[in-house]
Amino acid sequence: MERTIIKDIVNKIGQEVKLNGWVATRRDHGKLVFVDLRDRSGIIQVVGGDQLGDLKSEDVVEITGLVKERPASMVNEKIATGKVEIGLKEVKVLAKAEDLPFDTGSDDLNVSLPILLDYRSLSLRHLKKKAVFKVQETIISAFRELLTNEGFTEIQVPTIVPSATEGGAQVFKVKYFNHDAFLGQSPQLYKQMMVGVFERVFTLAHAYRAEPSITTRHLTEYLGLDAEMGFISSFQDLMDMVESLMKGIFKIVGEKNKEELNLYSATLPKVSEKIPRMKMREAQEIIFKRTDRDNRQEPDLEPEDEREICRYTLEEFGSELVFITHYPTKKRPFYTFPDPEDSEFTNSFDLLGRGLEWVTGGQRINNYQQLVDNIKKWENKPEDFDLYLQAFKYGMPPEGGFCLGAERITMQILGLENIREASLFPRDMERIDMRLPKKDGKKEKTSKKE
Amino acid sequence: MERTIIKDIVNKIGQEVKLNGWVATRRDHGKLVFVDLRDRSGIIQVVGGDQLGDLKSEDVVEITGLVKERPASMVNEKIATGKVEIGLKEVKVLAKAEDLPFDTGSDDLNVSLPILLDYRSLSLRHLKKKAVFKVQETIISAFRELLTNEGFTEIQVPTIVPSATEGGAQVFKVKYFNHDAFLGQSPQLYKQMMVGVFERVFTLAHAYRAEPSITTRHLTEYLGLDAEMGFISSFQDLMDMVESLMKGIFKIVGEKNKEELNLYSATLPKVSEKIPRMKMREAQEIIFKRTDRDNRQEPDLEPEDEREICRYTLEEFGSELVFITHYPTKKRPFYTFPDPEDSEFTNSFDLLGRGLEWVTGGQRINNYQQLVDNIKKWENKPEDFDLYLQAFKYGMPPEGGFCLGAERITMQILGLENIREASLFPRDMERIDMRLPKKDGKKEKTSKKE
Repeated sequence: MERTIIKDIVNKIGQEVKLNGWVATRRDHGKLVFVDLRDRSGIIQVVGGDQLGDLKSEDVVEITGLVKERPASMVNEKIATGKVEIGLKEVKVLAKAEDLPFDTGSDDLNVSLPILLDYRSLSLRHLKKKAVFKVQETIISAFRELLTNEGFTEIQVPTIVPSATEGGAQVFKVKYFNHDAFLGQSPQLYKQMMVGVFERVFTLAHAYRAEPSITTRHLTEYLGLDAEMGFISSFQDLMDMVESLMKGIFKIVGEKNKEELNLYSATLPKVSEKIPRMKMREAQEIIFKRTDRDNRQEPDLEPEDEREICRYTLEEFGSELVFITHYPTKKRPFYTFPDPEDSEFTNSFDLLGRGLEWVTGGQRINNYQQLVDNIKKWENKPEDFDLYLQAFKYGMPPEGGFCLGAERITMQILGLENIREASLFPRDMERIDMRLPKKDGKKEKTSKKE
Repeated sequence: MERTIIKDIVNKIGQEVKLNGWVATRRDHGKLVFVDLRDRSGIIQVVGGDQLGDLKSEDVVEITGLVKERPASMVNEKIATGKVEIGLKEVKVLAKAEDLPFDTGSDDLNVSLPILLDYRSLSLRHLKKKAVFKVQETIISAFRELLTNEGFTEIQVPTIVPSATEGGAQVFKVKYFNHDAFLGQSPQLYKQMMVGVFERVFTLAHAYRAEPSITTRHLTEYLGLDAEMGFISSFQDLMDMVESLMKGIFKIVGEKNKEELNLYSATLPKVSEKIPRMKMREAQEIIFKRTDRDNRQEPDLEPEDEREICRYTLEEFGSELVFITHYPTKKRPFYTFPDPEDSEFTNSFDLLGRGLEWVTGGQRINNYQQLVDNIKKWENKPEDFDLYLQAFKYGMPPEGGFCLGAERITMQILGLENIREASLFPRDMERIDMRLPKKDGKKEKTSKKE
């Protein structure tokens, strides 16, 4: 008999089927034994007796049985297959599981984050923990689909890079044969170069961040959803693209992931007809008026400022997202395009959502000589940027781009407390798969950051 | 006026349009000047005069002009927009290009590979060089689409790993805060773990290979298209999946990339109704009979053997692809499932195409104790595999998977001579972006391999 996957059972009432899967839970009621069976497509109740022997959670089985309608009073409305159950005929154990280190049968998996991560390949089997990655998969595929429809080409960029170009010291060093190399902090320079080739590009790139700090919203290895586009008429074009992209992603997640959103009682962010756009200095002014906290001279928004300005735009415009623009030149990288009206500021933006940064982007300098001058001003050597500079030397249109953090947006949509829950195998200062051993005598300086 | 992209011009005969793009070539005929303009969608001839000034290759322009039908005798059949041209009204230079280091106007870009790579962001603008990545993009998106339709979930796995698990010494070491970490040689262990969660998974993962050798078909950083599936009934299921996947990819490339295949005079591989499958020992026997070369005791096929067996299957079965199965246990990693009939061999396979390996795969050991024993036998420590082993400890179905090299398959479909042409920014022992400086006194041992 061919295997049936669980979600297809509802159309097979009265038929005998063969199922494969894992025992999710087992409940004994005298001679009757109820087993919930889980496969990639769903979960189903199997009713049996002695044949189920000592079957227990996470045992892998092949089951044959009869698909039966459940009595109206017994229907489980919460799951798609709640109207039917399987009357067991035969069970074959494909693999036994050892005793589990924690109970996986509850609606929530009530274990601490370290345990969740120490037992990653078990904890992810829990419906709610797995749901996070169903949503993440949708976000990523929506990003691809929407940009492809806008004429973007997907490119593949390397992560081993020749020098620590963007953020100075906070890069991971790689021993590359007899040379030193580094892990890229972003695909920035490569995606920009490829604007000269494909005009509009996007890439899914692992990015590496060696900052010795531990927060609930940063990872040392994360997935950047990066895009870059040429022939923009102003940097507003970039925000227009981000705006339609985010709205598109929310729409697709709303359609595809109802069940997953329900598990987290999550709602998609409210967005007004047009997402508000304001300069950083304007935001600081508003925050000052609302809170009396005077950060009007600061070169960036503090975390509490980001939360406050999101509260304001929600109250005032009914939008949980807001673009903050014109960050100061000294807080942005060398390639950022200066604001033509005030060169102390830049044609840059962040998209904040629910109190946190979701997207960062901006227009880039596309004039070769201006870029060379800026590289020097930032105390870098133009000769370290040979390949990059060629793209501008040989004709580059006005261009810009943006980057979404895949884990960050997943976390924010579902309302997760820690970004580590939005990464299958999160890396931080203290963990690569398992917790790293403590090294005495050579203690890392850690800053616990907000 | 809104910008029109070039491929849409054919529907606008008699209308005035605004175009953006790069000057591909310029030809002066007395007072008449012909400029080929290139954008992301195509190429079009612009006819002008004095207004074109000193415009030259790779200058970036905005052009307004009238779309005209070309006289029948002047139609260029080779390109989609060959029936029309633009009568120039106005030109605005958005960015000037410096003099080019080589001629980009010819049908072939006749420069050496080092020059091609030293000027990557310029050489890729050439239609033929760019075509490689249009084909690669199709291969990758076809891989995603076809597996998604088969119930696979796309997952994201990390590349920073805690230990050098698979291939011993040939891994890149990363300084990870106060610890040593490594760059993953493949997403193997992670995709296997996720079979316990999603049953069927695939991932696009950068893989890193620190072998100090230089060949025309290896990169130190490459893109692996990896898949893994549970509940297989035998390892033939895996080859069935690879077979339908490859046929699906060829079909989609054939539909989407006619123009790119033509540029390389490339044909898609011939595949018979069913791709031949033979044991490695059988292949060696056939090779011995055909060539008198006796490699029948060798533990692997040599490059010349791979070419010979592909010649044989093409002649005998009309297939340019062939599965070679049952490689010896000692040549495969610790997790490979032994052949139940002869434990000196394994339930593993390679798919060879046109004389080279395209795909590698096999069934994995899914029994916890057997896996622990094998880790020891391979002289590794089970405690280094804690997270991985959990997936098997808590119930893992019979499973297996495979990996396609994205650059390798692109190279093989187009008939490129060197795999570096199939990577936007290839990395090898001697190059990261630009050629690495030679270090005296500490010379790397290089083996020039076939």
